[in-house]
Amino acid sequence: MLVPTGLHEACGVIGVYAPGRDVARLAFFGLYALQHRGQESAGIATTDGRAAYLHKGMGLVSQVFNEENLRPLRGHIAIGHNRYSTTGGSHVRNAQPYLIETIHGPLGVAHNGNLTNALHLRRMLMKRGVGLTSSSDSEAIVQILAASPDVWPHIPPVDDEGDLWIGRIRALMQLAEGAYALTILTRHALYAVRDPRGLRPLCLGELDEGYVIASESCALQTIGARYVREIEPGEIVRIDASGLSSLQGAPCRRRALCIFEYVYFSRPDSLMEGQVIHTVRQEMGRQLAREAPADADVVVGVPDSATPHAIGYSLESGIPYTEGLIKNRYIGRTFIQPDDKLRREGVRLKYNPLPANLEGKRVVLVDDSIVRGNTAGPLVQLLRDAGAREVHVRVASPPVRHPCFMGVDMATYGELIAHRYDIEEIRRHIGADSLAYLSLPGLLQAVYCGMGEPTEPRHCTACFSGDYPLDVPEWLFAEDRSKVLFEN
Amino acid sequence: MLVPTGLHEACGVIGVYAPGRDVARLAFFGLYALQHRGQESAGIATTDGRAAYLHKGMGLVSQVFNEENLRPLRGHIAIGHNRYSTTGGSHVRNAQPYLIETIHGPLGVAHNGNLTNALHLRRMLMKRGVGLTSSSDSEAIVQILAASPDVWPHIPPVDDEGDLWIGRIRALMQLAEGAYALTILTRHALYAVRDPRGLRPLCLGELDEGYVIASESCALQTIGARYVREIEPGEIVRIDASGLSSLQGAPCRRRALCIFEYVYFSRPDSLMEGQVIHTVRQEMGRQLAREAPADADVVVGVPDSATPHAIGYSLESGIPYTEGLIKNRYIGRTFIQPDDKLRREGVRLKYNPLPANLEGKRVVLVDDSIVRGNTAGPLVQLLRDAGAREVHVRVASPPVRHPCFMGVDMATYGELIAHRYDIEEIRRHIGADSLAYLSLPGLLQAVYCGMGEPTEPRHCTACFSGDYPLDVPEWLFAEDRSKVLFEN
Amino acid sequence: MLVPTGLHEACGVIGVYAPGRDVARLAFFGLYALQHRGQESAGIATTDGRAAYLHKGMGLVSQVFNEENLRPLRGHIAIGHNRYSTTGGSHVRNAQPYLIETIHGPLGVAHNGNLTNALHLRRMLMKRGVGLTSSSDSEAIVQILAASPDVWPHIPPVDDEGDLWIGRIRALMQLAEGAYALTILTRHALYAVRDPRGLRPLCLGELDEGYVIASESCALQTIGARYVREIEPGEIVRIDASGLSSLQGAPCRRRALCIFEYVYFSRPDSLMEGQVIHTVRQEMGRQLAREAPADADVVVGVPDSATPHAIGYSLESGIPYTEGLIKNRYIGRTFIQPDDKLRREGVRLKYNPLPANLEGKRVVLVDDSIVRGNTAGPLVQLLRDAGAREVHVRVASPPVRHPCFMGVDMATYGELIAHRYDIEEIRRHIGADSLAYLSLPGLLQAVYCGMGEPTEPRHCTACFSGDYPLDVPEWLFAEDRSKVLFEN
Amino acid sequence: MLVPTGLHEACGVIGVYAPGRDVARLAFFGLYALQHRGQESAGIATTDGRAAYLHKGMGLVSQVFNEENLRPLRGHIAIGHNRYSTTGGSHVRNAQPYLIETIHGPLGVAHNGNLTNALHLRRMLMKRGVGLTSSSDSEAIVQILAASPDVWPHIPPVDDEGDLWIGRIRALMQLAEGAYALTILTRHALYAVRDPRGLRPLCLGELDEGYVIASESCALQTIGARYVREIEPGEIVRIDASGLSSLQGAPCRRRALCIFEYVYFSRPDSLMEGQVIHTVRQEMGRQLAREAPADADVVVGVPDSATPHAIGYSLESGIPYTEGLIKNRYIGRTFIQPDDKLRREGVRLKYNPLPANLEGKRVVLVDDSIVRGNTAGPLVQLLRDAGAREVHVRVASPPVRHPCFMGVDMATYGELIAHRYDIEEIRRHIGADSLAYLSLPGLLQAVYCGMGEPTEPRHCTACFSGDYPLDVPEWLFAEDRSKVLFEN
Repeated sequence: MLVPTGLHEACGVIGVYAPGRDVARLAFFGLYALQHRGQESAGIATTDGRAAYLHKGMGLVSQVFNEENLRPLRGHIAIGHNRYSTTGGSHVRNAQPYLIETIHGPLGVAHNGNLTNALHLRRMLMKRGVGLTSSSDSEAIVQILAASPDVWPHIPPVDDEGDLWIGRIRALMQLAEGAYALTILTRHALYAVRDPRGLRPLCLGELDEGYVIASESCALQTIGARYVREIEPGEIVRIDASGLSSLQGAPCRRRALCIFEYVYFSRPDSLMEGQVIHTVRQEMGRQLAREAPADADVVVGVPDSATPHAIGYSLESGIPYTEGLIKNRYIGRTFIQPDDKLRREGVRLKYNPLPANLEGKRVVLVDDSIVRGNTAGPLVQLLRDAGAREVHVRVASPPVRHPCFMGVDMATYGELIAHRYDIEEIRRHIGADSLAYLSLPGLLQAVYCGMGEPTEPRHCTACFSGDYPLDVPEWLFAEDRSKVLFEN
Repeated sequence: MLVPTGLHEACGVIGVYAPGRDVARLAFFGLYALQHRGQESAGIATTDGRAAYLHKGMGLVSQVFNEENLRPLRGHIAIGHNRYSTTGGSHVRNAQPYLIETIHGPLGVAHNGNLTNALHLRRMLMKRGVGLTSSSDSEAIVQILAASPDVWPHIPPVDDEGDLWIGRIRALMQLAEGAYALTILTRHALYAVRDPRGLRPLCLGELDEGYVIASESCALQTIGARYVREIEPGEIVRIDASGLSSLQGAPCRRRALCIFEYVYFSRPDSLMEGQVIHTVRQEMGRQLAREAPADADVVVGVPDSATPHAIGYSLESGIPYTEGLIKNRYIGRTFIQPDDKLRREGVRLKYNPLPANLEGKRVVLVDDSIVRGNTAGPLVQLLRDAGAREVHVRVASPPVRHPCFMGVDMATYGELIAHRYDIEEIRRHIGADSLAYLSLPGLLQAVYCGMGEPTEPRHCTACFSGDYPLDVPEWLFAEDRSKVLFEN
Repeated sequence: MLVPTGLHEACGVIGVYAPGRDVARLAFFGLYALQHRGQESAGIATTDGRAAYLHKGMGLVSQVFNEENLRPLRGHIAIGHNRYSTTGGSHVRNAQPYLIETIHGPLGVAHNGNLTNALHLRRMLMKRGVGLTSSSDSEAIVQILAASPDVWPHIPPVDDEGDLWIGRIRALMQLAEGAYALTILTRHALYAVRDPRGLRPLCLGELDEGYVIASESCALQTIGARYVREIEPGEIVRIDASGLSSLQGAPCRRRALCIFEYVYFSRPDSLMEGQVIHTVRQEMGRQLAREAPADADVVVGVPDSATPHAIGYSLESGIPYTEGLIKNRYIGRTFIQPDDKLRREGVRLKYNPLPANLEGKRVVLVDDSIVRGNTAGPLVQLLRDAGAREVHVRVASPPVRHPCFMGVDMATYGELIAHRYDIEEIRRHIGADSLAYLSLPGLLQAVYCGMGEPTEPRHCTACFSGDYPLDVPEWLFAEDRSKVLFEN
Repeated sequence: MLVPTGLHEACGVIGVYAPGRDVARLAFFGLYALQHRGQESAGIATTDGRAAYLHKGMGLVSQVFNEENLRPLRGHIAIGHNRYSTTGGSHVRNAQPYLIETIHGPLGVAHNGNLTNALHLRRMLMKRGVGLTSSSDSEAIVQILAASPDVWPHIPPVDDEGDLWIGRIRALMQLAEGAYALTILTRHALYAVRDPRGLRPLCLGELDEGYVIASESCALQTIGARYVREIEPGEIVRIDASGLSSLQGAPCRRRALCIFEYVYFSRPDSLMEGQVIHTVRQEMGRQLAREAPADADVVVGVPDSATPHAIGYSLESGIPYTEGLIKNRYIGRTFIQPDDKLRREGVRLKYNPLPANLEGKRVVLVDDSIVRGNTAGPLVQLLRDAGAREVHVRVASPPVRHPCFMGVDMATYGELIAHRYDIEEIRRHIGADSLAYLSLPGLLQAVYCGMGEPTEPRHCTACFSGDYPLDVPEWLFAEDRSKVLFEN
């Protein structure tokens, strides 16, 4: 993707139920595999059925944990969380999981997603007299679960089927609007919950000694768990001493898995809806080649995320694939600012061209998506400076024209280049010889390649189409929706 | 005091309302002056009427704060807290102040004291469906304040006099049993609250630009505030843009200021009930000399806490005062353990004797109190090794025979040497030539020296007398009352 | 490469002379681009002609530096260093650059390489009475430069051409045996020095305001410097207020650039001997395909390092290239150990397979090199578990049979799998259906692809051939050559 | 002392030789007892006869060391060092001990003192071609010891008595001018060295298993060592497997123990020249009372350092002693600056008055010394504000009129209040009713109280008298003698 700062990745969650194993260690390596979903903070909570234990901190999971702080995380149930990095206001107060004591014992929640009615829920809680310590909608979730369902006005009675936590989760599902994929820890059980639209992914794996829940299947593989299936939209899975059981927590609504998981978020080796992400991305590239061919000598991808798309474009078009840009493998947060002169050359800090593969060539530069569009121009220029005769930009997804409110901290309307400009204007802006995007039908066709076209929509395509799968409150569309809770 | 690990000091709180001043900085220096009341963690919360800001961390106030984290604590209202150090289970999660968002804006609380019905209140909150993140009774206080008074069962209606926070504080005072001296921050006001028995101290000072509330008057002097008066038992003081107002939050019960504030806790330069602590301690020493004279050559105090008592003993007895023990000025937490051989010589790591002042002398060793009694023996031996011919231990307070549940994490019955042994047994245990304690009437007489004998009791003497000023639940007397909430 | 822990990468150095620019900042971003050459420690020294300034620390360059410690590094000359990571004994004491005060002002040295007679030189210095603070041969270099050339026995007089530092550098070149690429800072000049065999790379770039010296050209591009040329073996380049001058510091010996720079060390976008590394690696893959064809369906590389070799193999063989293994992008040092069960599955923590691209396929797995051989087996198994029908391992370099003593902390004889076993034994050990290595002539042919076959050897191939370009002292071949200087 | 920032305390050193004990741990607790001599950095080096081990860092000894970094400091010989705190330029580079490798094995040095010809020695070393890494004169010492004595020009041959280190130490004693008390570690022995004038203190203690060397005897007591005697001026003590031996390293010159050790530096419980410091200080107070009586009601000392002097004044004058100022026990480095208003009230951050003991009283305020004189004024004012009717300042040492160059980083001439003003001017400056200093003969008489008047001078009194016991180079008297070596 050309603009990694425009899209904040959507957090990663994990849950482990495995008596006899070191569940905190398994959670650690699972989070390690999900690191691409969030780099701001990491945390793990466990319980041994008696007490609960928690450690969380700022930074990569490998920075937050060491043997000394992992060891006390005893027990047979663990949940874990990676939080995405934001450009400001980051604070350990917002790190997850949240762990509280309730009248029924410890309760821990790890949340991937975003509630569109978070403000309403916070207000509802505060009106009840519950003080909130952070600005996170995940704290609202955990405090809603802390209370009996019958304290909430305007919701019908829920059937708890003999497990009070089931009743509370069902109440939460009545109250919460938006995206949530949750792992929940209680004294005796691990729960996995996915919102009724299935906006964010969540899957189930099996160990010899128990079960694992994870945002993506790559985490299962990493810790030696066998992939079983996805958690269904609206489903609640409970895992305890008597095994695994499943029930419908809320009726499934229009299915709407975030299509950007296919485009960019997920790791290429993850399995989603029965197909490997890498394969789908390759197919997007193929479809792009069919829709937007280019008369060129070589196909180059923006590393690393657009490599599969570029390989697909190459395979379909017959134009040879090669590496044209090298990305600094050790790129990471640096707090050092380039001076003015370096700033003007910005993109070089991350990418260098391979002139031997570019000189005198007509180049197809494939990217997975363009969000803000402020890196595309410098990259095109970089290729030209390295000798490329022509640069044809091909984007393996449609123009991003609408902000996301379902778990991705995407730019506002004003920041989305495709909201402000038409394609020809963008082409001129980035200085490409030609520019084409994959069509939305083309994208969907690629996504369906391995499963066949569904009879009804299965994905959220709102960022491309503006067709939101749920009602978005007006104020969320405002340019400035920042909200100070506590600073520092 | 001979056993600093037996008595945990009782936390320090501060509150500042001063438009135009850097209130966080004033709170910092106030906490700095109150550092003796708690060294485990420190924190400051402020508000500018719009947002609220918080920083807290583990360690001394000078370690927790630097210019970088102090600067963002903007506003005109600040509260701050020093927490006492415990030997285990210390965690930043329990650091204060607590700051939450409520439906009526930010709410911050700094609490000195201990609620005897904390478990009951936690259960009451959790039954309502409020999840708690820590094991601190101060979190219970802040969550009680977050809710409207009418949600609490079994309390009569409260009069909020047009300020909803007053209503909530009054409800809290109905619900909470035990010791609490609070500074409370809301969007527009600073409140100071003292429990109806006045168990823990709290006083009021004045700045040119506003007011200061502090656990002890030494903090007022340090930041240039003029001492005004003490907050009365059961009083609520409110300070806002319209100035200072006072009202009775709950009827004053039997007054019961902790007498140990006079014996050991407070700084000698603090003013309490109209008298300087140092003067009272000197008087305790005088009274001790009258009650328990000794045929000796020299009076020596256990530094630094027992110096005033020793000076008093000397003045009254005519036996010259001198320094006999030197304490390492830089003693502080070290994580290095002595080896076996050093351990046997334990007390030397903190104290060295001054043989020139001791050799061939009959020594009166004055201490302020004896709690567990495991350092007295080594100190007596140290004096003997330095040449003292006789060592007569005089303790400027009565034997500590009962645990405290009102804000001092004192030892259990089993750990209190004077609960297990009579005075002659203790004398033999510590190897002194003679041992005497100040009587309780004698202690009270010293305390009354500057104010005249009151018509009714004004102080809690439970640790000496077993006469608790409130009902103590049975379970609190148990030897092991530790309670795991979340570890790590 | 299959075994990143077997070969320690060879440090990166940088030098900047640029009045009017923030040279420390340029050095920072240069080191950032050279991060792949060493992750243990990083440092930058600068001078403004009056005083010298230094900051160094453990970790990645982005962890070591922040605006606060970068700002004081004033001046117009800077040198910098990244140190490779070792598995133990790492200490900030060994971090570079070394900066000392001499009678002629400050002297700073950043060193990439390894002296084969370091022990001899250390002894020579210590015999003179110079105490050494570290076990680094780079400290020997800086102390040799600190003294006048005529104090060294057994070396002929050197011509300093009017610049005393030139004389000292020439004396060093007489004394030092082995590999060294140096950037040197003095009060008024920046020097670049390369050993007479050119064992380690070093190149020159130009800025509008001055010059840059770097281990690899990727660092030049990153900071906007134009690539000029390589420093020649035995050359000394001096850059000062009067511009750049060059002279021969020692007669060029048999040229012997480390061939492993082509195989693995250098970044693919760097230019070496006139050719882009990426192109050479692709050619290695092509040559491997010619020498060791395989009857297979798909070519897969070990990411990221063997991707270019695999693309080359694919292009030459016509067997389609695809991605078969996904590497965790965020892999980094973690201090958490897998439990036994995870350990047995070790490789999964770093790599996951893409079954869709492997199932039922006969796979060619291309790696750049095999050193210890303990990861190859698990990777082959991973591919088989993902459904690969056959796995044919192809290594794009010859068997590594000899240790390196010229700047790469390679394994000892006993640790080199190809020293202990023949190829068929290795094949069985790793469980491959077939195994083939590129021949040494084939490797050289690939390296010569862009420059034509040289009339005489230009590269060190000792790790493959045992043909060391210089005399290696017997003791260096010993299995245990560890040496405690100061621990902790 | 009124001005703790005017006099930097003079470092503390320790050395332990004790097979079978954990010598690093003993060194740790020894440094802990010597913490008052330096708070900037701390370090310990050890050897087991095979390798040497080192850890040092910034801060208090309890902050620098933990079990993890102490444990690897193996062996039977240890040396340790506390460095005094300076207001700027502090850097771990200057932390001690220095530990180097020489041709004869490891060499470690811990140094208390200051060489007046350090610049000359540094130049001598640099001319020889030895590069120096720090601005410390202690590094010059260690590099001089690293070389054979015969490389030094202009010194007569030295007799090494069969131990090469003895020869080198003797050569050092020929070369070095100024103050040095050293503990030196080599592969097999521990050495203690004191300069020929005995400017800085150093003493010897005995353990069951070996010996201890320390700056002050308080460190011996703390670790259970029996005090034996002082190291003599010019003496070298060697301790190794064959026991303790002593020899004269250089002829004793005019004895000149720093008299400020008696006035302020040493801990009151330390023994010096056969007498306890506390006793001498009490005698200074007595002498002051004789020389400068005051018509007053109460004697108050500036805590904690002037307490013994004040007690002496009281005993002699018959004016009752009391505590009048309370010092914050937890005062420590804080990086928070008071705001302007607080700054004007500066002294309150450290001291609060005890009005009950001052009100309406004529007060004698006893201090041990006045250096810069910028705190005296505020303290006098503090007493007046607390109700003192008169304040008579009595200083238990003569006016400090001359800077020190022998191990105390005292102010320059321009900063010494008694250099610029006469006593009446100082009195007016600080606002006292009367001001008197102890005379130099009076001071000496107090020092001689326990040992009888010596036949010739034994002490350096240069800061009072200007009578330097050695030649001080002219440039050292300059106001600005700062010297940048490496910053940051």
